Amino acid sequence: MAFPCLDKLEKKTQDLSNSCNIEDDNISSLDAGPEPSYSYVQTGFKLYKSDKPIFLDNGGYLPEYEVAYETWGQLNAAKDNLVLIHTGLSASSHAKSQPDNTKPGWWEDFIGSGKYIDTDKYFVVCTNVLGGCYGSTGPSSRDPANGEIYATRFPIITVNDMVRAQRELIRNVFEVSKIHASVGASMGGMQSLAYAWEFPDEVNKIVSISGCARSHPYSIALRHTQRQVLMSDPNWKRGFYYGGVPPHVGMKLAREIATVTYRSGPEWEYRFGRNRADDSRPPALCPDFLVETYLDHAGEKFCLEYDANSLLYVSKAMDLFDLSSSNRSKALQKRTATEQSWNSQNNISESHSVPPEPYKEKVGSATVTPEESLEDLRNGISKISHKDVLVIGVESDILFPVWQQREIADVLMQNNTTGDIRYFELGTNISNYGHDTFLLSLDHIGPPVRDFLG
Amino acid sequence: MAFPCLDKLEKKTQDLSNSCNIEDDNISSLDAGPEPSYSYVQTGFKLYKSDKPIFLDNGGYLPEYEVAYETWGQLNAAKDNLVLIHTGLSASSHAKSQPDNTKPGWWEDFIGSGKYIDTDKYFVVCTNVLGGCYGSTGPSSRDPANGEIYATRFPIITVNDMVRAQRELIRNVFEVSKIHASVGASMGGMQSLAYAWEFPDEVNKIVSISGCARSHPYSIALRHTQRQVLMSDPNWKRGFYYGGVPPHVGMKLAREIATVTYRSGPEWEYRFGRNRADDSRPPALCPDFLVETYLDHAGEKFCLEYDANSLLYVSKAMDLFDLSSSNRSKALQKRTATEQSWNSQNNISESHSVPPEPYKEKVGSATVTPEESLEDLRNGISKISHKDVLVIGVESDILFPVWQQREIADVLMQNNTTGDIRYFELGTNISNYGHDTFLLSLDHIGPPVRDFLG
Repeated sequence: MAFPCLDKLEKKTQDLSNSCNIEDDNISSLDAGPEPSYSYVQTGFKLYKSDKPIFLDNGGYLPEYEVAYETWGQLNAAKDNLVLIHTGLSASSHAKSQPDNTKPGWWEDFIGSGKYIDTDKYFVVCTNVLGGCYGSTGPSSRDPANGEIYATRFPIITVNDMVRAQRELIRNVFEVSKIHASVGASMGGMQSLAYAWEFPDEVNKIVSISGCARSHPYSIALRHTQRQVLMSDPNWKRGFYYGGVPPHVGMKLAREIATVTYRSGPEWEYRFGRNRADDSRPPALCPDFLVETYLDHAGEKFCLEYDANSLLYVSKAMDLFDLSSSNRSKALQKRTATEQSWNSQNNISESHSVPPEPYKEKVGSATVTPEESLEDLRNGISKISHKDVLVIGVESDILFPVWQQREIADVLMQNNTTGDIRYFELGTNISNYGHDTFLLSLDHIGPPVRDFLG
Repeated sequence: MAFPCLDKLEKKTQDLSNSCNIEDDNISSLDAGPEPSYSYVQTGFKLYKSDKPIFLDNGGYLPEYEVAYETWGQLNAAKDNLVLIHTGLSASSHAKSQPDNTKPGWWEDFIGSGKYIDTDKYFVVCTNVLGGCYGSTGPSSRDPANGEIYATRFPIITVNDMVRAQRELIRNVFEVSKIHASVGASMGGMQSLAYAWEFPDEVNKIVSISGCARSHPYSIALRHTQRQVLMSDPNWKRGFYYGGVPPHVGMKLAREIATVTYRSGPEWEYRFGRNRADDSRPPALCPDFLVETYLDHAGEKFCLEYDANSLLYVSKAMDLFDLSSSNRSKALQKRTATEQSWNSQNNISESHSVPPEPYKEKVGSATVTPEESLEDLRNGISKISHKDVLVIGVESDILFPVWQQREIADVLMQNNTTGDIRYFELGTNISNYGHDTFLLSLDHIGPPVRDFLG
């Protein structure tokens, strides 16, 4: 039996191996092919550099860090029209084209003059997240302590860590004390809530699209399989693949799994049905049905577009996201302890960027009932229940199921909110695009966002 | 950062490599650990051997083959009480303990004296599917033409091929001309319908639990990722790993992905919640949340329990399952052509067990509308719409969604059926076990089955 899909992977490994001999630490970027959704942006963004450390929710810290960002529109004199856009897992700050990078951005038609997020009214800012690979400090950055690439010496980060880095940009570069809105979808929806949670007095309005207030074990499971597949690629080398062949096979497979979670069955029923790629040929174990060639293509397109370690760290940050009271309290304790230690010594002797103790596996059962857990979340979210919040959910989304969207609205409302809480749900009659609806059904997502921003 | 999950995999590879030096073609079976659902059965089954060839839906054939089977209860004098149980993807013929193998079977408490499938009334037979690795001829069997293990020279098989092999057993060993019932869940549900479709006059009653009348592109996508992950394991060696280290890492990862599709979010919410395995330790990229350690364990348990090539072939057979008229017509044409060629020459010169032409990948769109496709299915299924059929669906199932269950019942009923079509749906208030409900909620699945069997 012929295995063209494996031939292709082996050829790519060989090509990458050849190119590694002439390049150094750079990640090779091959041609992305058609259907680009997230573009690999090496230029066109600005950099905010903090020389002060950032202390992290899990006890580590970064002695210094950079945040890549792009802007659209103008900051007004009152400095009260800033809209901060948060990205999903693998997106860059390039939400929209701009003079320094004219390629279409990932929300090109959502943001702009007269568009749903109107740059005639708002000063729009989008950053690359901490831990990412599109300009902000992440695992592929160099540790200033020794000049070496962090790789998996990079500390575990959280979504709340990401937004605390963003806030430094907002305060120090734009000198804005209160942003008009924090807007995001998917992991961007997490950030959107997290920003308000960390700085409730510095945000007017919050928009969370296809996000959540805490990650669900099923979503964790879906991301777990992607991470495990990636880490099992021999070329991952426990994160120290820079300068060598990157784990493109693991990245491709992880993206294929991810793509299954980003879309929906009904969409594929219409788009691919049970059609095979070539019905005149015998069935094969390599991609055969149209839907398989689609997944193969999606994986192929992504496998060198994003840094593998960034995928692991940012995916893990999503798992750890939880605005429950107990979780945030623990994070604050750990962070404060590291900060105090740092302040008293004006540094910390051992590097806390490496979790000091290895992890030991253990199988067990939940120690908290769903009801207790929900109460914990309600307590945590009460910190922002006086804010104006727009929650948008999509019924066909399996990664951030619609009941997680309702959960956000419910816990906000049950906290005797004084804010304007709005909840919109797009049924399967409106969108079968699943989790990716926020990228594809702009005309359905847009109007409630525009109205809410006011 | 420590990676105990990778340490473990590397140690297993080393251990297997050491043991390969003393063993030959056998697959090493390590201790399965707790929570066994499918047991690795090397003994206790009987073998039916056909010296006549089986011609396959995709044009290949097997010159001879064996079917492993086990039985419970007694065949009555009228020979009209045989109930044929069909297995899911990875199960053996060992549905229940019996004198030659006293280990509990995968439907231990469903079958037996006074149980839902009552062995006081029925003569119950269960086989290992063609393509499997628990005794029936599959990719790990030897090709009689040259004595070598088939590996990926094994022909692509379909669910309909499987049931045609089973029918030879029923006719030639038990001399039963009409079975009382064809019963199965998951891929067993496919077989259950397929058996009746192939031999409508030889089946009284059909039970399909969490099955379907045709595979959906979303289910194909979910299985695709598992196959790709497995085939990307360097130890898979395009199927020729026998005698060496088996692709245990790919198998483990494939099983982890599969496990996500077998259960449901709400179950895991209750079972694991957001609990971490050890909250006193820092977060890690290796399994960390309880749900991750569960998946890790499920994959670990399975990785040497099933033959990797069998997984690929049987998984592919599920993708190809489609009782639509056009699909079955094509299969019949191909099969007949091979058979005629074989008859005229009393053999075929070139081996048709290898698909002759390599597959070429192509991206495209569906050429058939969902409506046309449904009409095609309705025409195909009309062949069994005069039969008595019980369809059971589970609302929390994401792999065989409940609307696929309704589809079976709908197309049967829309064919002016004269049969007794019954449809049962287990809501989320009854079972949150998802696709695995048929293994776990016997007291909810059982009563309608018992009543229907009469």
